[in-house]
Amino acid sequence: MATLCRPSVSVPEHVITMEQTLDLARSVHSAHPQLDLALRLIENTGVAKRHLVRPIDEILKHPGFEQRNAIYEAEAKARVPEVVRQALADAELRPTDIDLIVYVSCTGFMMPSLTAWMINALGFRTDTRQLPIAQLGCAAGGAAVNRAHDFCTAYPEANALIVACEFCSLCYQPSDLEVGNLLSNGLFGDGVAAAAVRGRGGHGIQLRRNGSYIIPQTEEWIAYEVKATGFHFRLDRRVPGTMEPLAPVLKQLAHAHGWDAAALDFYIIHAGGPRILDDLSKYLGVASEAFRFSRATLTEYGNIASAVVLDALRRLFDENETHDTARGLLAGFGPGITAEVALGNWSTGREAS
Amino acid sequence: MATLCRPSVSVPEHVITMEQTLDLARSVHSAHPQLDLALRLIENTGVAKRHLVRPIDEILKHPGFEQRNAIYEAEAKARVPEVVRQALADAELRPTDIDLIVYVSCTGFMMPSLTAWMINALGFRTDTRQLPIAQLGCAAGGAAVNRAHDFCTAYPEANALIVACEFCSLCYQPSDLEVGNLLSNGLFGDGVAAAAVRGRGGHGIQLRRNGSYIIPQTEEWIAYEVKATGFHFRLDRRVPGTMEPLAPVLKQLAHAHGWDAAALDFYIIHAGGPRILDDLSKYLGVASEAFRFSRATLTEYGNIASAVVLDALRRLFDENETHDTARGLLAGFGPGITAEVALGNWSTGREAS
Repeated sequence: MATLCRPSVSVPEHVITMEQTLDLARSVHSAHPQLDLALRLIENTGVAKRHLVRPIDEILKHPGFEQRNAIYEAEAKARVPEVVRQALADAELRPTDIDLIVYVSCTGFMMPSLTAWMINALGFRTDTRQLPIAQLGCAAGGAAVNRAHDFCTAYPEANALIVACEFCSLCYQPSDLEVGNLLSNGLFGDGVAAAAVRGRGGHGIQLRRNGSYIIPQTEEWIAYEVKATGFHFRLDRRVPGTMEPLAPVLKQLAHAHGWDAAALDFYIIHAGGPRILDDLSKYLGVASEAFRFSRATLTEYGNIASAVVLDALRRLFDENETHDTARGLLAGFGPGITAEVALGNWSTGREAS
Repeated sequence: MATLCRPSVSVPEHVITMEQTLDLARSVHSAHPQLDLALRLIENTGVAKRHLVRPIDEILKHPGFEQRNAIYEAEAKARVPEVVRQALADAELRPTDIDLIVYVSCTGFMMPSLTAWMINALGFRTDTRQLPIAQLGCAAGGAAVNRAHDFCTAYPEANALIVACEFCSLCYQPSDLEVGNLLSNGLFGDGVAAAAVRGRGGHGIQLRRNGSYIIPQTEEWIAYEVKATGFHFRLDRRVPGTMEPLAPVLKQLAHAHGWDAAALDFYIIHAGGPRILDDLSKYLGVASEAFRFSRATLTEYGNIASAVVLDALRRLFDENETHDTARGLLAGFGPGITAEVALGNWSTGREAS
């Protein structure tokens, strides 16, 4: 039984508050015809602060794609080792116990991916499988959990390590001026996270079932345009409304497992934005409070892409009130529009798995 | 028992011969101090011709990363459907029978990846899992087979589809003038390939065991530099020598399965270049003839990155002389330096799996 253990999360030291974000938007986009709308949308996010890998003054100047990507690599190498070591320690695993590294990141591009550097620098075995995923965006947090689950299902004695490394500020594009861009500039934050999935033993979510779903004909709703200046994020205004078609998918997956999606004990939901959380609680028929972990991530860190679900799960661990066998759901949403959903039971690790 | 079925392969209509490549190198790089060495290296590849998505005159003019990537997307959408349909037909599967699409491609970048478009355009189920891998380069052909194998091990009734889409010519960089670049300009070609992995039944390689290996401290030997002009390929001169450390890894994996890597019935090897094939046959202790499928791919198409192993396997099917239970090995090599290796038995599908 694969168990998703306690995630370790780290956010950078450079902080920007909501007030600073609004002030910046007012000064940078003073002549924008839809400035008021953008300010309102940013305020509605509820993102009180975000953490950035570099000071905001530096972020605002686009140094070119090459330099951006060099910063991505340097910051990843500086920040990933700590969360990896902590996640392994929390799962009571050594680097040599890991059989698969799933590395998810959509905000920088390296080939080979950081997995090669990690194996060399952090003491993983030379026969560790590498699974780098760059193209599932915010859904990749859920996808990483699900592919690690599948791997441990195939090899019950194996252990996997998930790493999410998202420096969304390095995809800030000064020339992108649509309202969706201005909103994104106030919504996304930076963070790195790691979590182990143990094939045997462990404390956390015993992964029971997973599923993926794509909403038909929405592939252009969340997308990168790839340009000389790097990845340009495109966010369609219909994205916040996607929980209406996705809630039935979550219900159906739970139902297939004999569970009622409206009556689970915990929910770890990708905090794409406030309406994602509001709508999903409405359409699932669960209290808003059930998504408190995701809301806390959104408020304190912003949308940190694939790392959101790991941070929200970390908060569930920290709350420390979940009982053995409690049933829960984890869901990532991202480009496609794709949902990656997992169902599992809480295990304190005190009884045999 | 997961079975890797017959791959379908397609190469584009624009052909460049070895003689044309050499003439081009002589005219474009007439003043290059190491032109003679580059010409000799290109001649040594044995690549008689390659197939390109666009005419060579057009390829030689770099239209910018944005335009390149737009060509990538258009060509992928134009060329992938045919190989997918054929691969499914050869495996006697419908699109709705597929549970996982593994899409490997390192020569263009899209988010969402082509998997989202494929699900919408080619009739796959909305709950198909998407596994896009962009960062394993030439090793991704082997990785795709292995991750599909793992998935079918976890879900024995499931079927996976592998798609490799490589337009290496779209990564041609006129400003890169190292000998390794000139060699690469004469070595890599374009191609798309697809193959199904059936959880039950099927004709092809019954996948028995897989493994991955990274040669320590070689992560910079094959790498992309990411720039405003796109992906810049860096090839270290030590890469052709990597079969000496990798051959023991292949032997060890075979040995762990009770097989002798020197005495298998078929070999599907990534044809990175002629020395890769020469050295591996030497260090494994197998006749050069054993790698005839890979050599044919290299000669006729050049190095088509992650699609090489699928094309070489297609040639094994076409030879049609492999007997039931024949034992074989498939290996992809790429950045890391990473090897992705699979062991399997041939099955004509006429006996129960």
